[in-house]
Amino acid sequence: MPCAIGIDLGGTRIKAGAIDGEARVLVRRTVATEADQGPDEVIQRMCAVSRELCDELGGAAGLPAAIGIGAPGALNRRAGVIISPPNLPGWRNVPLVERVQQGAGLPVILENDANAAAWGEYVAGAGHHTHDAVMLTLGTGVGGGVISDGKLCRGHFETGGEIGHMIVQPEGRLCNCGQSGCLEAYASASNVARRVVEAIRAGERSICDEWLRKNGALEAHDVVAAAAAGDAVAHRVWGDACRYLAVACVNIQHMINPAVIIFAGGMSAAGDQLLAPVREHFERLTWPGIDDRPELRIARLGNDAGWIGAASLALATVTPTRARQF
Amino acid sequence: MPCAIGIDLGGTRIKAGAIDGEARVLVRRTVATEADQGPDEVIQRMCAVSRELCDELGGAAGLPAAIGIGAPGALNRRAGVIISPPNLPGWRNVPLVERVQQGAGLPVILENDANAAAWGEYVAGAGHHTHDAVMLTLGTGVGGGVISDGKLCRGHFETGGEIGHMIVQPEGRLCNCGQSGCLEAYASASNVARRVVEAIRAGERSICDEWLRKNGALEAHDVVAAAAAGDAVAHRVWGDACRYLAVACVNIQHMINPAVIIFAGGMSAAGDQLLAPVREHFERLTWPGIDDRPELRIARLGNDAGWIGAASLALATVTPTRARQF
Repeated sequence: MPCAIGIDLGGTRIKAGAIDGEARVLVRRTVATEADQGPDEVIQRMCAVSRELCDELGGAAGLPAAIGIGAPGALNRRAGVIISPPNLPGWRNVPLVERVQQGAGLPVILENDANAAAWGEYVAGAGHHTHDAVMLTLGTGVGGGVISDGKLCRGHFETGGEIGHMIVQPEGRLCNCGQSGCLEAYASASNVARRVVEAIRAGERSICDEWLRKNGALEAHDVVAAAAAGDAVAHRVWGDACRYLAVACVNIQHMINPAVIIFAGGMSAAGDQLLAPVREHFERLTWPGIDDRPELRIARLGNDAGWIGAASLALATVTPTRARQF
Repeated sequence: MPCAIGIDLGGTRIKAGAIDGEARVLVRRTVATEADQGPDEVIQRMCAVSRELCDELGGAAGLPAAIGIGAPGALNRRAGVIISPPNLPGWRNVPLVERVQQGAGLPVILENDANAAAWGEYVAGAGHHTHDAVMLTLGTGVGGGVISDGKLCRGHFETGGEIGHMIVQPEGRLCNCGQSGCLEAYASASNVARRVVEAIRAGERSICDEWLRKNGALEAHDVVAAAAAGDAVAHRVWGDACRYLAVACVNIQHMINPAVIIFAGGMSAAGDQLLAPVREHFERLTWPGIDDRPELRIARLGNDAGWIGAASLALATVTPTRARQF
């Protein structure tokens, strides 16, 4: 059975591994990115990890057919070039595919990290056994990936699936991207924390104020804990995040009409404290007449989604017949 | 070269014709639906039109390979059954595909009318030469169709592309579908007219009041004319419609990332009076950093889009190799 290597290139860690044609994990390995050493060193580390994985796979599984890399944008997928990711300092128009191909001696494909992770959950996680799935990654920002009828929906400019920048509140809160009222401005982990800090600075009372003084910073999971403890400010901010996520889910339902919407990323660790209110708002907001509601689920693969997705996409490229299984 | 027949089954008219493999129109024909006569009579009329088109095509183009029907929902596309369309009284679980197949002696496929029209514009109209196009039909309601990477995005429950029910204003105006704040509640032809009537009934002054008294009803094109003449109420309502259409376009841009968004339906007759303000709001609302903006265009095929799309989908079904051209 063919197998492939996947690499998830993050600002802090390189997560990698190999899967077989049924998307089963054969081996996995994580190393530090050491991004501050610059692209040459990082690429060398990626090639070294690939060779180590090949050695580990040994003769049993055979040589991997290809390597898939999930990398942060901006990137040019077709050209295999990393343009200028904010969390990889010094990278500018790096021909990553060509260089890893030379260093590892295998065909290499590139995909943006959000799409790779969505594809991973689709083939081996919370979207498995569906043909239409959408993933929302709730981290510092809100990323997204759309699979429609078994294919990644990349779009004409290859910037499809940017669900974090769906406008859920016209003339609403300013987003980092320059738009107003984006989902990300209310429902990313960093904005959830930031909105509580803003409320405290504006004079509102919150248990989070103590934590903020003690720790010097506030995180989204603090807000979730405070909301659960009955703190009014945290309850309101967390409620807003869940409500706007539900608005986004209704809009995804009507546009893409997936079988499942998957929540991933750091904030999805809230589990039922996220799912229950989002589901409640979603049921209230969506149309009553047609029963075409996607299931709302938490992602299953955690930090493995990116490299598994990248490996699966690589395998689909070199063995296209096999890809149709998914 | 193969050819196929398309039929657009409307509540008032049956629009039909035949296209060749390059989506060029060979013949066309329109007859009254006479929906009040019930399904048997309507199906007979559809079969008669098909036979007439076959005769007209004669030996030159050869016998059509198939018939495609675009019909109003609710319908079961795979089963070929019309479930219960509001504007076809007496239709309930009618096996339309089977019956037209028997009556016309050709393979028949079924598609919902909004998808058929979007596909028509995609293969032969304002979306031609793209691979990713979205259409919004601005009529009594707001319909939609999504083509991603050359395929209709039907979704898991086959209710994808219902862009009229995207929430563009949370807790906003009540929509016919039961949701609040749908695009359709602000930007359908009927709601544009209705909002002006509501403003007049609430005591606001508008030139539309005169027209309403004189004609007993107000239409969207009256509102467009009044807005152009400087009427404050019409200007505000039309401005809202265009602004919410722009919000929808931003959300389509980030999710589907098409090359083009096409406006069709009665209200698209407003032409530049629609396009100019929607474009202006869109430029203001979308992110400034990435240049991935779809072109906003008016549909080109008018009432022919539905049957041309249905014919093209039929042709793609019976000659799948050819379909890859589009």
